[in-house]
Amino acid sequence: SFLLRRKQSGRCNTHVDMEKDKVVNMVQCDEMLKDMEDMGKDKVSYCRCWKSKKFPYCDGAHNKHNKETGDNVGPLVMCKGSC
Amino acid sequence: SFLLRRKQSGRCNTHVDMEKDKVVNMVQCDEMLKDMEDMGKDKVSYCRCWKSKKFPYCDGAHNKHNKETGDNVGPLVMCKGSC
Ligand code: FES
Ligand code: FES
Repeated sequence: SFLLRRKQSGRCNTHVDMEKDKVVNMVQCDEMLKDMEDMGKDKVSYCRCWKSKKFPYCDGAHNKHNKETGDNVGPLVMCKGSC
Repeated sequence: SFLLRRKQSGRCNTHVDMEKDKVVNMVQCDEMLKDMEDMGKDKVSYCRCWKSKKFPYCDGAHNKHNKETGDNVGPLVMCKGSC
């Protein structure tokens, strides 16, 4: 099946911006810090499992992905104050 | 082979901190900005393909990974000034 072929290919991404040649996300640091402040958060997590429905943000989907595939991936967490 | 099994499992990571249950990296924003300043750079790229030899940083290994697997992944780029 198509799903099987995709899984067997060794690719990471099967969901995000599939029409793009390469998915690169640019984050402006000051804007990220302002967003954190606006939301009253001191951390923001960015997805590295490519399964988040809120990509480029992490929505916790890595846990299901890890369980299903035996993977051990997790987010990159940017901390405003201490980590 | 083990390699084949790993590739077929649908996991993203086959190289980084394989002994860990979950690979999460915490980045303190002020330290990141200071590092950029020290290095005279206005951007820093973080790996989301899990193939970088400088993980959690991107070393360009996503290009080989994409070519070999048909994937379309790329880094998260943090910009100090404008992106
Ligand atoms: S949802 Fe992808 S790393 Fe958390
Ligand atoms: S080396 Fe992994 S995204 Fe660039």
